[in-house]
Amino acid sequence: MNRKELVKQIKSKSSYLCVGLDTDIHKIPSIFRQCDDPIFEFNKMVIDATVDHCVSYKPNIAFYEAEGSKGWESLQKTIEYIPDSHFTIADAKRGDIGNTSNLYAKTFFKTYEFDSVTVAPYMGVDSVTPFLEYLDKWVILLGLTSNTGSQDFQNIESKEGEPLFESVLRKAQEWGSPDNLMFVIGATHPQMFSRIRKIAPNNFLLVPGVGTQGGDLESLSIAGFNDDIGLLVNSSRGIIYAGDKPADIKKAAETLHESMKSLLNEHF
Amino acid sequence: MNRKELVKQIKSKSSYLCVGLDTDIHKIPSIFRQCDDPIFEFNKMVIDATVDHCVSYKPNIAFYEAEGSKGWESLQKTIEYIPDSHFTIADAKRGDIGNTSNLYAKTFFKTYEFDSVTVAPYMGVDSVTPFLEYLDKWVILLGLTSNTGSQDFQNIESKEGEPLFESVLRKAQEWGSPDNLMFVIGATHPQMFSRIRKIAPNNFLLVPGVGTQGGDLESLSIAGFNDDIGLLVNSSRGIIYAGDKPADIKKAAETLHESMKSLLNEHF
Repeated sequence: MNRKELVKQIKSKSSYLCVGLDTDIHKIPSIFRQCDDPIFEFNKMVIDATVDHCVSYKPNIAFYEAEGSKGWESLQKTIEYIPDSHFTIADAKRGDIGNTSNLYAKTFFKTYEFDSVTVAPYMGVDSVTPFLEYLDKWVILLGLTSNTGSQDFQNIESKEGEPLFESVLRKAQEWGSPDNLMFVIGATHPQMFSRIRKIAPNNFLLVPGVGTQGGDLESLSIAGFNDDIGLLVNSSRGIIYAGDKPADIKKAAETLHESMKSLLNEHF
Repeated sequence: MNRKELVKQIKSKSSYLCVGLDTDIHKIPSIFRQCDDPIFEFNKMVIDATVDHCVSYKPNIAFYEAEGSKGWESLQKTIEYIPDSHFTIADAKRGDIGNTSNLYAKTFFKTYEFDSVTVAPYMGVDSVTPFLEYLDKWVILLGLTSNTGSQDFQNIESKEGEPLFESVLRKAQEWGSPDNLMFVIGATHPQMFSRIRKIAPNNFLLVPGVGTQGGDLESLSIAGFNDDIGLLVNSSRGIIYAGDKPADIKKAAETLHESMKSLLNEHF
């Protein structure tokens, strides 16, 4: 999916919600565990319940990989079930030397046909660029993550006074453009969004950490919006484990969607 | 495998060679492509040819993942085929928020029973510690990698004059010990090994980048040895694609083994 289509989906739906499919076989309602493919059947239910409220789905690859080859089959079926109107994110946080990143790109963009994949920046240019060579596919590079460990290295200031995550944002814009490069910025750092918009004014930001991790939608949205809205805000556990019934899951997605509608109405 | 056993294997064999199983279905001899499971059959041949010369095998997970669920089956069979005497490394470069890293650890340590997994440090403490909670299992954390992109971020100097990779080496030693934490240091930086041994004197170093990437075994070994030898030097393409015949592959591993024997004889 290219940027124009993504922005069109967001505007037509008044939603910039991404639903994270962190589907843990031990946490899903017991009724699904009687199915042949519990993970896929649960995801199908979640997708049906949320499809009108979100513009994107983000399977967290760890949850599929942990089930071995059966998990990868569940992932394949899930991706095929997601409508083409929705932007798909492989939350895989891959990154390796060039010839290996080439293969990861092939896996997620060709074998599984995702629109985008999350990539870790530590190994630099040749770990990232192989993902940027696919037309209408996206790299979502880790910038400032939502977890407590983000303090360990991402905020280390260089001699020039630039925190590491800002070096990542700045440098990566030499490799990709706002048409194929987004950044992960955790919702748990709402005070950082204005500063980040100065460094990366045009890139989309994928924002995890509302819901269970406690990020505040309103403040990060106001500071994070750009002319194309420019945000995909993800909720995983807060939606998919909102209750045992499809209606509970729909309600959780709808609540976030309503908040997004209000914010978009006020600011655009 | 614990440290004592690993050191015993290295000393009894006079080898600190790790063979990287970067098995690319498009590069293996055509005869294997007629098998039901070409990747596994090729790996089996490589393991048989090299088992006397190395102490470790490192499947590069990208190559298996790229083949979908069938690739994961090849990986499972490969791991089961590697003798218990050999230290196994899942070269996966994973790293995510705590609950997700938990799952990655479960995948590689329980589902696939690897001894160790490579982990990317960017997301900090809670992305790494879940891997450290397994007895006799190891984290191999990216420090200074062998690729050209290692220059982009790993060498950024902090205000205190410390390059990022050194901050990683220093900080990570608060999380793990030389009994469960190794570092990846690329063979393409031989001049850095003395300095690295000042910061991490006791940890094992996994050293990729000899062979195809051009690192020099002798200089990095002399500077990198510690009392327990402390090195695992990896060669992937230089061994597994050394020729079409098992004898070619054996010869390539044997040549590195002979160099290692001489270096160990001189220095221990």
